[in-house]
Amino acid sequence: MDKKAVLIGSGGIDSTTLLYKLMDEGYRPVVLTFLYGQKHGKEIQFVKNTCNILKVQNITIDITGIKDLIKGSALTDSKVDIPEVPETTEFYDTLRTTIVPNRNSIFLTLAVAYAQSVGCNHIFFGVHFSDRGVYPDCRKEFIDSFQNSQILANDNKNLRISAPFVDLDKSDIVKLGNDLNVPFENTWSCYKGKKNHCGVCSSCRERKRAFTEAGITDPTIYNN
Amino acid sequence: MDKKAVLIGSGGIDSTTLLYKLMDEGYRPVVLTFLYGQKHGKEIQFVKNTCNILKVQNITIDITGIKDLIKGSALTDSKVDIPEVPETTEFYDTLRTTIVPNRNSIFLTLAVAYAQSVGCNHIFFGVHFSDRGVYPDCRKEFIDSFQNSQILANDNKNLRISAPFVDLDKSDIVKLGNDLNVPFENTWSCYKGKKNHCGVCSSCRERKRAFTEAGITDPTIYNN
Repeated sequence: MDKKAVLIGSGGIDSTTLLYKLMDEGYRPVVLTFLYGQKHGKEIQFVKNTCNILKVQNITIDITGIKDLIKGSALTDSKVDIPEVPETTEFYDTLRTTIVPNRNSIFLTLAVAYAQSVGCNHIFFGVHFSDRGVYPDCRKEFIDSFQNSQILANDNKNLRISAPFVDLDKSDIVKLGNDLNVPFENTWSCYKGKKNHCGVCSSCRERKRAFTEAGITDPTIYNN
Repeated sequence: MDKKAVLIGSGGIDSTTLLYKLMDEGYRPVVLTFLYGQKHGKEIQFVKNTCNILKVQNITIDITGIKDLIKGSALTDSKVDIPEVPETTEFYDTLRTTIVPNRNSIFLTLAVAYAQSVGCNHIFFGVHFSDRGVYPDCRKEFIDSFQNSQILANDNKNLRISAPFVDLDKSDIVKLGNDLNVPFENTWSCYKGKKNHCGVCSSCRERKRAFTEAGITDPTIYNN
């Protein structure tokens, strides 16, 4: 029998590879996607397509009402531009504008609520080591602490929040995805949401770099 | 200068008394209220009225989209009736249907997101000791653990989540509210949301009992 799981899906390389990995391990995850006021909902369509291909359930939850709470992020606030970053340098400071305050906590509490509702104890999400510098809610110490709080919140000692990629670089995830035959062309990373990936936002830069470092051909069409 | 704070408000006795207490201590809280798919939004109007009287900001956030995630609760699911409970017995088992999975975690992550956005470090909410039996997310051990997870999530060691009533019974809160001249007639507890308090749902029973135990006249009009 398929093992139950809830996966937070963003349509990007990380959560899509995690979905393929879970399927490979005998899970049949329900994939949750969130409309939280991001500037484009392009990623939602990519999640839907992948879930259709794999015949797993996808639930999109509209919480755009929280937009008024999370001001100042380049991903949600029309007054803040998506930063373009150079190819060769580190760009941690620029990336800070792409922080959405408390986003992973928000997504995880909702995933836990759903899991509790349907009698599932295992929540997965695709954060990885390359994100830990800028995004504190992608760090292992956060996930461990958060899991503990959710066990207490629901009086459910069997609840598990797993981030299997938390110690992997994005290039390791590309390698794993390649081994699992993930169709990377069906994933979306770009913060801008035009027809093609822009190639110059921090998320596109990271995507390019991951393929280069992994030594795997990047099937993405970039505008730049 | 007024001290900054974010308060989660429900329009009930507990969070309203906490608002008066915070004002008394020199805070000027922003009160957050959530539309999360509850069967009636009557409480929202009570929060608004109180905030108007006290001239504090109230922000109502519509996250009714999460209704699909939190099935099975009597407070949100049209297929589950609000339980009526007898006056004299303990009713813990009946109360279990009124659990909304992970509700306090959801509210708190959103309150933290807002606090982070506006540069405020202090979040308050009104959970109390009488709720700890049935609702695990009203317990001190949860709050402490959750605060720790949110410090890590936002890399902000100054973040504080405070529940000043966590060791108080509801009757103690009524006594405190009485001392602070809280107009209890401007608060709402009933799960049913009719013109008057029903008097027989668990929340009305608890309200009645708190006034009786506190020895303070209950100004509430009950149907039963």
